[in-house]
Amino acid sequence: MPHKLIKIKRVEDRGPTRPVMIAIAGDSAAGKTTLTAGLVTALGPERVTAICVDDYHRYDRVERRAQPFTALHPACNYVEIMEQHLQLLATGQPILKPVYDHGSGRLVRPELVEPREFVLVEGLLPLHTKLSRACFDLSIYLEPPEEIRHGWKVARDTEKRGYRPEAVLRELEAREPESAAYIRPQSALADVVVRFAPIAGRDDPPGTPLSAELVLRPSVQHPDLSRVLDNVERHAIHLKLTRDADGRPVDTLHVHGHARRDESSEVKKAIWAQLGMAAGDPPSTLGTFGAGQHSEPLAITQLLLLYHMLDATAEARMSS
Amino acid sequence: MPHKLIKIKRVEDRGPTRPVMIAIAGDSAAGKTTLTAGLVTALGPERVTAICVDDYHRYDRVERRAQPFTALHPACNYVEIMEQHLQLLATGQPILKPVYDHGSGRLVRPELVEPREFVLVEGLLPLHTKLSRACFDLSIYLEPPEEIRHGWKVARDTEKRGYRPEAVLRELEAREPESAAYIRPQSALADVVVRFAPIAGRDDPPGTPLSAELVLRPSVQHPDLSRVLDNVERHAIHLKLTRDADGRPVDTLHVHGHARRDESSEVKKAIWAQLGMAAGDPPSTLGTFGAGQHSEPLAITQLLLLYHMLDATAEARMSS
Repeated sequence: MPHKLIKIKRVEDRGPTRPVMIAIAGDSAAGKTTLTAGLVTALGPERVTAICVDDYHRYDRVERRAQPFTALHPACNYVEIMEQHLQLLATGQPILKPVYDHGSGRLVRPELVEPREFVLVEGLLPLHTKLSRACFDLSIYLEPPEEIRHGWKVARDTEKRGYRPEAVLRELEAREPESAAYIRPQSALADVVVRFAPIAGRDDPPGTPLSAELVLRPSVQHPDLSRVLDNVERHAIHLKLTRDADGRPVDTLHVHGHARRDESSEVKKAIWAQLGMAAGDPPSTLGTFGAGQHSEPLAITQLLLLYHMLDATAEARMSS
Repeated sequence: MPHKLIKIKRVEDRGPTRPVMIAIAGDSAAGKTTLTAGLVTALGPERVTAICVDDYHRYDRVERRAQPFTALHPACNYVEIMEQHLQLLATGQPILKPVYDHGSGRLVRPELVEPREFVLVEGLLPLHTKLSRACFDLSIYLEPPEEIRHGWKVARDTEKRGYRPEAVLRELEAREPESAAYIRPQSALADVVVRFAPIAGRDDPPGTPLSAELVLRPSVQHPDLSRVLDNVERHAIHLKLTRDADGRPVDTLHVHGHARRDESSEVKKAIWAQLGMAAGDPPSTLGTFGAGQHSEPLAITQLLLLYHMLDATAEARMSS
């Protein structure tokens, strides 16, 4: 486990230590919690503070019915307080975080949150403002194709939250204009955009994991994968130098759902080695989801994020 | 009304305007709310944000029963969050303040608080830490004799909060060690200590208001009352140069409950004139309490605090 390998000494007598701040943004049911859970397991829960900024609702469920917008709208959230709390966490200070109870739809007693070594912030709008974005060392936007996300949302909200499928579909329709206006624009503002989807035109057997396409923007220094991936002809995992939607250069990493473990394992070791941890193997728990299922595209995605989290800690150590 | 006389221009384009911060500390039922209410009326509610820091309870009523201390103990409160929120308000920023429901004894949904021109902070422990004290332009500690405070607490808790007198007396007894350890030491840290009490040895008719003794510490510049009060022999209102409990020099202002309105009126005008407001009269609402009762000692106390609040605003205006 990496938390056995890397021991970061906390410099208590210099005031609060600044944690590594990671944003995981995306629309409802885009896979934020699955991605986060794997990172928490890999790092060890005692090193990670994970919060959801959807708790910063201004109105409860009953009050929202009287409002001309859905929970996605920034006006429906205490965005200014969210910014303030992210700044406090980023500077190592505790917050008294509001709590929204998804079961009852009510705002309840707030809870004390103290930043550990890593703070994972997931939610609908963590990248909505410039001030909130400035709090993060790395930001990720999860962008599955809409039809896949809709399927995930119907499955989750009917199974875990007790809604009927028609109600979930109606809600998705009601939210669509605000998704387009406020949630999806965050995709252009993240350091990494992750898209889990099947590969068009392939006839993979049932149970094949979704493939991952990762847009690695040059806003941060990513691990250098070109040496591993450029020299060989690879079908299942490849890195492409491409152009972003706005024309700026980006790397795009493709990890196919049918990637063989030995091939993906080589990529994982290459990422891991660049952290100066060639001795150990990357955490074996990466890529786990649902009830014991495994996905190499998810594993590589999580490992890339883990790389950034550990790399940011190492940097903080060197500059302190 | 003074808010018609003094118009403070808020400098919106320089970032948040810093409010004038006033602490009103004291034990349970020491008269904090009565004093605060009069100041809010005099200034106009639209200019004042009034909060109670007893909302920063760490435990609800049921959880407290399992704790080895009462609600007075700093460990029973989120003192660090209280400090943080006071700093935010002092720098003109909003907070999402926790809310303790005295009726149900439960911690409920937090509320957005935005600082207006004046922020009045009352509670049990606003002066408990150095960092919290640093947030205030003026701090007041209310210190009625314990037997009077006990009477006030029994009256209030039985009439307004539905307790039986025995329960209130038991609670007072349980709280006494923590009152002594954490609440009363704040008296030595305030700029002004106010003591409402009858004058020993006098046989005033029933209904005579309590007298006020105000310790005016040189930690802030008080209005110069020496010219008004030194030259004449006064029985009902007098200023004494004395020594504080620790030997440091202080002024002590005595306002007797039987002070005549004309005598007290002269003192009020002198204070008011020093604010450069000789033209108008001090607010006529000062000194009101309970169901339409009036107390000149309370009026002069409130006017002195009002002096400091308006004076701090004027200073802020000049230095901006």
